[in-house]
Amino acid sequence: MSGVGIWFVGARGSVATTTTVGLLAIRSRLAGHTGMVSELPEVAAAGLPSLDGVVVGGHEVAEGTLGKRAEELSAGGVFPPALATVLAGDLAAADERIRPGVVAGHGTQRSAADRVGAELRAFRDENGLDRVVVVDVSSTEPPAGDVPALETLAALEGALDAGEAPLPGSSLYAYAAFRAGCPYVAFTPSPGPRLPALLELALERGVPWAGSDAKTGETLVKTVLGPMFAMRALKVRSWSSVNLLGGGDGQTLADPDNAASKIATKANGLESILGHPVDGPLHIDYVPDLGDWKTAWDLVSFEGFLGTRMSMQFTWSGCDSSLAAPLVLDLVRLLARAHELGAAGPVPEFGFFFKDPAASDVHALSAQWAALAGWCARAGRGAL
Amino acid sequence: MSGVGIWFVGARGSVATTTTVGLLAIRSRLAGHTGMVSELPEVAAAGLPSLDGVVVGGHEVAEGTLGKRAEELSAGGVFPPALATVLAGDLAAADERIRPGVVAGHGTQRSAADRVGAELRAFRDENGLDRVVVVDVSSTEPPAGDVPALETLAALEGALDAGEAPLPGSSLYAYAAFRAGCPYVAFTPSPGPRLPALLELALERGVPWAGSDAKTGETLVKTVLGPMFAMRALKVRSWSSVNLLGGGDGQTLADPDNAASKIATKANGLESILGHPVDGPLHIDYVPDLGDWKTAWDLVSFEGFLGTRMSMQFTWSGCDSSLAAPLVLDLVRLLARAHELGAAGPVPEFGFFFKDPAASDVHALSAQWAALAGWCARAGRGAL
Amino acid sequence: MSGVGIWFVGARGSVATTTTVGLLAIRSRLAGHTGMVSELPEVAAAGLPSLDGVVVGGHEVAEGTLGKRAEELSAGGVFPPALATVLAGDLAAADERIRPGVVAGHGTQRSAADRVGAELRAFRDENGLDRVVVVDVSSTEPPAGDVPALETLAALEGALDAGEAPLPGSSLYAYAAFRAGCPYVAFTPSPGPRLPALLELALERGVPWAGSDAKTGETLVKTVLGPMFAMRALKVRSWSSVNLLGGGDGQTLADPDNAASKIATKANGLESILGHPVDGPLHIDYVPDLGDWKTAWDLVSFEGFLGTRMSMQFTWSGCDSSLAAPLVLDLVRLLARAHELGAAGPVPEFGFFFKDPAASDVHALSAQWAALAGWCARAGRGAL
Amino acid sequence: MSGVGIWFVGARGSVATTTTVGLLAIRSRLAGHTGMVSELPEVAAAGLPSLDGVVVGGHEVAEGTLGKRAEELSAGGVFPPALATVLAGDLAAADERIRPGVVAGHGTQRSAADRVGAELRAFRDENGLDRVVVVDVSSTEPPAGDVPALETLAALEGALDAGEAPLPGSSLYAYAAFRAGCPYVAFTPSPGPRLPALLELALERGVPWAGSDAKTGETLVKTVLGPMFAMRALKVRSWSSVNLLGGGDGQTLADPDNAASKIATKANGLESILGHPVDGPLHIDYVPDLGDWKTAWDLVSFEGFLGTRMSMQFTWSGCDSSLAAPLVLDLVRLLARAHELGAAGPVPEFGFFFKDPAASDVHALSAQWAALAGWCARAGRGAL
Ligand SMILES: NC(=O)c1ccc[n+]([C@@H]2O[C@H](COP(=O)([O-])OP(=O)(O)OC[C@H]3O[C@@H](n4cnc5c(N)ncnc54)[C@H](O)[C@@H]3O)[C@@H](O)[C@H]2O)c1
Ligand SMILES: NC(=O)c1ccc[n+]([C@@H]2O[C@H](COP(=O)([O-])OP(=O)(O)OC[C@H]3O[C@@H](n4cnc5c(N)ncnc54)[C@H](O)[C@@H]3O)[C@@H](O)[C@H]2O)c1
Ligand SMILES: NC(=O)c1ccc[n+]([C@@H]2O[C@H](COP(=O)([O-])OP(=O)(O)OC[C@H]3O[C@@H](n4cnc5c(N)ncnc54)[C@H](O)[C@@H]3O)[C@@H](O)[C@H]2O)c1
Ligand SMILES: NC(=O)c1ccc[n+]([C@@H]2O[C@H](COP(=O)([O-])OP(=O)(O)OC[C@H]3O[C@@H](n4cnc5c(N)ncnc54)[C@H](O)[C@@H]3O)[C@@H](O)[C@H]2O)c1
Ligand code: NA
Ligand code: NA
Repeated sequence: MSGVGIWFVGARGSVATTTTVGLLAIRSRLAGHTGMVSELPEVAAAGLPSLDGVVVGGHEVAEGTLGKRAEELSAGGVFPPALATVLAGDLAAADERIRPGVVAGHGTQRSAADRVGAELRAFRDENGLDRVVVVDVSSTEPPAGDVPALETLAALEGALDAGEAPLPGSSLYAYAAFRAGCPYVAFTPSPGPRLPALLELALERGVPWAGSDAKTGETLVKTVLGPMFAMRALKVRSWSSVNLLGGGDGQTLADPDNAASKIATKANGLESILGHPVDGPLHIDYVPDLGDWKTAWDLVSFEGFLGTRMSMQFTWSGCDSSLAAPLVLDLVRLLARAHELGAAGPVPEFGFFFKDPAASDVHALSAQWAALAGWCARAGRGAL
Repeated sequence: MSGVGIWFVGARGSVATTTTVGLLAIRSRLAGHTGMVSELPEVAAAGLPSLDGVVVGGHEVAEGTLGKRAEELSAGGVFPPALATVLAGDLAAADERIRPGVVAGHGTQRSAADRVGAELRAFRDENGLDRVVVVDVSSTEPPAGDVPALETLAALEGALDAGEAPLPGSSLYAYAAFRAGCPYVAFTPSPGPRLPALLELALERGVPWAGSDAKTGETLVKTVLGPMFAMRALKVRSWSSVNLLGGGDGQTLADPDNAASKIATKANGLESILGHPVDGPLHIDYVPDLGDWKTAWDLVSFEGFLGTRMSMQFTWSGCDSSLAAPLVLDLVRLLARAHELGAAGPVPEFGFFFKDPAASDVHALSAQWAALAGWCARAGRGAL
Repeated sequence: MSGVGIWFVGARGSVATTTTVGLLAIRSRLAGHTGMVSELPEVAAAGLPSLDGVVVGGHEVAEGTLGKRAEELSAGGVFPPALATVLAGDLAAADERIRPGVVAGHGTQRSAADRVGAELRAFRDENGLDRVVVVDVSSTEPPAGDVPALETLAALEGALDAGEAPLPGSSLYAYAAFRAGCPYVAFTPSPGPRLPALLELALERGVPWAGSDAKTGETLVKTVLGPMFAMRALKVRSWSSVNLLGGGDGQTLADPDNAASKIATKANGLESILGHPVDGPLHIDYVPDLGDWKTAWDLVSFEGFLGTRMSMQFTWSGCDSSLAAPLVLDLVRLLARAHELGAAGPVPEFGFFFKDPAASDVHALSAQWAALAGWCARAGRGAL
Repeated sequence: MSGVGIWFVGARGSVATTTTVGLLAIRSRLAGHTGMVSELPEVAAAGLPSLDGVVVGGHEVAEGTLGKRAEELSAGGVFPPALATVLAGDLAAADERIRPGVVAGHGTQRSAADRVGAELRAFRDENGLDRVVVVDVSSTEPPAGDVPALETLAALEGALDAGEAPLPGSSLYAYAAFRAGCPYVAFTPSPGPRLPALLELALERGVPWAGSDAKTGETLVKTVLGPMFAMRALKVRSWSSVNLLGGGDGQTLADPDNAASKIATKANGLESILGHPVDGPLHIDYVPDLGDWKTAWDLVSFEGFLGTRMSMQFTWSGCDSSLAAPLVLDLVRLLARAHELGAAGPVPEFGFFFKDPAASDVHALSAQWAALAGWCARAGRGAL
């Protein structure tokens, strides 16, 4: 397969910038594949596109340049400063392919969606790409409300035709992507493609997508520790979680409305794994000082034989963008392959990457891994 | 199936006492099954013997009584003091079935093994038991040296006939158990049944066994976190481990010779899971003050995308005997069933319970769970 | 000195019950003095009253008995169950001296205050006591609003005479205590004696008092670590704190209005010690499962030479009532001595015990210790 | 005061290099004073020399250059890479003033000491310095044995004259420094000036010195937490410590003989502070992967009122060289001032900086701070 493009929504954010730097660094043989799941044999077996020809573009509402963002991120320890310097030219070229994002209230949603769709098609055509995977790595939005116009595709089209603006920002991009025949990754907990109307649209257009909310740190750990307690018949009594982070993502989540989406996806998995509600707070706090580094602390209180009470605690010190970027590349490769093989709608086997796996109730990481490896083996044989 | 007996080697140790108290408490409906894997549906599917008819006996070299040990353990928070009080009568009855253990240097190993065998048969006959599972929960011994007499069963029999004493203490019990047709659990890292001569013997006598060294705390956590890093293609650079514990086990392991066995089994799994050697110390320290509670701290340093260095640390605060006791009951039930179904030699699918799984290279907990569940499903259908 | 009484507001709460059990246990030589600062030579030097003759009484609004509460607390590991059993008779006797607390809205505050005052005097007289120290260990209340009637004693007396109810619950007890000539300990962050009107009253009546909000755990640690960073010229950039607790106190603080008082007193000291505002969240979460045990986790991010960023984290696992009770006894002894020596108003040197030291800006523990030791030395010489 | 020189023993080690970079950066206004105690008002009050005129030289046995070492350290995150680049010229100039260190077995100790002394005097004269402070930041050596020749100065001189080699390496430098009239800082736990013969020599020559073993991380924390437990009458039952570090220091301490010195100085303070022996291991482990960053974990188990058992744990993640370098500058300034004021022998008030304070039994950090501030106030008035 040749000619894959990545189109970032949020193209100058921390994750998009780190992914772009990483892609360019790998292509220039300045970096290896650590953190890339798609290089593990069980996943590579799917017959994934090489990263060599991948072109990057995107939408962004913020000022600045990719080059400047790369400098800032490298100063914060996300990747070595030398990379930002060496890749400055390539980053400037990529920056030229970034278009202004959609700002709510500027024109109708119908016209905005048309514009986005046209830009996606232009990117595909101008770069001679077989397919373009749209990746939403923009700021987390609040959960969607209950809006009738989002319930069916017909209702949605009617509302857009009527000049209404029923779509959350992330969903507008998903709508445009699906209409342009672009596979989609919902890397954030924003509503994105998860509205009934858009579920319909993706199937109708035969476009595969994956989501939501990448599982990169504390939640990742929960989905291996939770099953451990379950497999050992130990009773988890409370599980308290604290996430401290700075950066753009932290700033966005400092607004409780935005954080509501993230807290919902984070809380999700544990109760499903344990099979019962679990007490304990789940905090996400903005600590500007911490920059792109997140520190999470979890306290698990559990009960064993004869009622004996024990506990476990862990501290995770991770660089969020560095954990996210290789997964973005993995998902782009996997969705390009899924598209090539004719998959449509949410791919449940890609739940391995997400806190809130679409079309799947499986949260335990090892079960997700087995499902992913199975999909890749089938894809390798050319038949899903 | 009816009539199962448990014969403890180390019958008044912390694990044996807690198991005995737990068994009696469950039978008297004073306690539930938290921590018992054999009550989970996937494992119960094997058709396991009930705990109701189980009789307990054993060997012990230490003074004191089960009742006294139960009081001490409950004062240390291992189980509620009320249990020790209520079950005092039953504990006294169990204590009557404890025989003096084998002390090195008192008589020949041949005569000691004969005595142990006779006592096992007497216990089975007097209590009308179908089968007796021998569980080694005695003090950890040093690793076995390279002794020619342990290499083949013929060499061993010859040496014993010649009045020699080639067997480590734990292996003498395993030898006697196998000759008496008793399934065996190597709950400790001691040599026990893992000598070539005894591997032969178990097969010859058609006796199943499981081992070695139960996986109850820090190592358990390692076998879910290790695979997490591997599945995410993150490179573990160092993994440092500290285990602080008091109690009888802590005291035994304060001797570096004894600790050598434990350190070997603990280190084992991680490198196998990650596929490469991992730097970092592994300490086991005796801190009398901590009693039966173990605190373990692990620091994992890992590398992600573009070489970014991150870390994770955890602290495990567990009550070792409380974590071990339900697994002893699980293993007794599973081995009784395996024996009933004609299994012989080490059962690789029971590796789920152990740090150093006999006849298996699988250390990742979820893979072990899948193997165990598979065995149980087959056992439930009556054909391994 | 002889004849000291303790009068608890919240007499069947966790702290009051643990203190009462401890006092009785010490008197019966069933327990030692661990945790009692007043037994350290520098403090004992003040010439403090013995605990032998101390009589306990109090107000309480909750049902139940001291004996029952003691059983519950001991089941939760706050003290050995045997103590609750052995001291059952003494606890029942103390329970007889507990009077119904003041419930807002039942009658006027004037009449309630009169009733409380009469009960304090009756307790003193009936038990032939030289002095009675009132200790507020009742549920934390919200901060007081800006109420003109609380600004001067004259305004307050006028309002009470007019049938108004301007006093927060805790302050009503303080008002009654001062009028009855009783020294007072504000163990909680509730307004209590810290209103201008009551500051006047205490001085007018010549009564010493101490407060507010005992420093028993995470905040205690902060007041030694904070000065460490300051003395080493290291720049604290953020300090994030999480407190997880169950029990009655946890339940009360689950209400954000009540928690506001505690959060204010907890945040207080650090900025004063470091001399600049410090970023980072301060959470207090109710996790019922944890009972009377509190787990606190703090992450300190700091900057050193040449801008290098480092961090420190700690986890505190403490039993709050067990940490509080000996300090209650210390404060009773110290205030009795202060009263005997004629002190009036807040005693700044007792700031050692508090998160929000009255009449003092000193938060660093070692500086507080020096002040306390100085006061005790002077008291020992009989002249403050 | 003008004209101070620093002479490093171990001039291209991590601490010396970081100190040199820092000194040059401060002088070029590229860095501030974070981490420098001598800039706090209580210490600056002593009237300390400015850093502006300070010249650096030293002895070193390793190959390489200061510039190269600075690059390596900055790549490891010890300071910003830009500093190494900008200061390359100044570092090269400083490197020219580094002389070959003393290698055991090359020539007699008498001749080596004479050579070192001559080089110290040459450095002082060529740079027109008032005084030169020698700072031992070379690799930690094993503890000194019991050697009669080290017991008195006369015996030492006799042995040296006789061509013997009784001096540990670090002590040879101290001997030469004292004879050249140079104040001395024993930043390491090596024997250095702490031999009876050298104590005599320092007094005889009227040279002040300070030591031993700078207190920069986990031990620093111990000396504020230990007093906290003591001031609250809480009984520390065990204190377990683990130090994981890479770098040159870590490599040196991987040898148990060298580590013996460090373990002795680290264990020292806690028991002195608490007034009783404390159980628990103290590990120092070499984990190359961690580079110049040390992670230390401590578990403190303590007992409170009525025997209740609680615990506290902390993790310290510090950059050792970054913590050490500003203290080196502080000590140089303080010793220069002490020398100017005529102090001789170990200065007990400088114990604030050390794990094993010479001529002092005070380990609690706040008491040490009070002593240091007192000394500085007296120095400020010109009379010690
Ligand atoms: N890093 C991780 O580990 C991780 C994991 C899971 C989810 N996520 C999610 O990924 C997203 C990106 O994270 P980040 O750290 O890069 O955040 P960021 O704040 O650095 O980047 C978000 C970018 O989106 C842009 N943006 C906002 N609204 C837009 C719009 N309407 N159109 C186009 N661009 C828009 C912003 O200007 C910004 O540049 C967040 O939603 C985050 O929650 C990240
Ligand atoms: N508790 C856990 O979580 C766990 C996990 C894995 C392995 N283990 C192993 O289980 C074993 C038991 O642990 P424990 O905490 O009960 O230790 P323990 O010291 O309390 O008990 C061991 C008992 O074995 C007895 N014993 C020693 N030599 C004997 C002999 N030759 N014959 C008969 N009895 C003998 C001792 O007298 C003692 O009563 C240890 O080897 C330990 O390493 C325990
Ligand atoms: N335990 C500690 O370490 C610690 C430290 C600092 C402050 N405190 C404070 O001490 C107080 C007591 O803590 P606790 O754990 O014992 O709480 P608790 O909930 O167990 O006890 C409070 C008691 O006060 C009673 N009460 C409530 N309103 C009353 C009223 N109007 N009159 C009389 N009694 C009343 C309640 O019924 C309850 O029995 C809390 O305010 C807490 O914040 C405790
Ligand atoms: N960094 C801290 O926080 C800290 C705290 C207390 C003590 N220390 C001590 O400071 C010393 C230096 O630490 P570091 O991290 O710089 O170690 P390092 O290994 O990086 O540097 C030591 C240097 O000493 C040199 N050296 C060895 N023997 C010598 C000799 N005979 N003459 C001259 N030079 C010699 C080595 O070649 C090396 O360059 C160590 O002893 C360490 O224990 C450091
Ligand atoms: Na104050
Ligand atoms: Na000393």
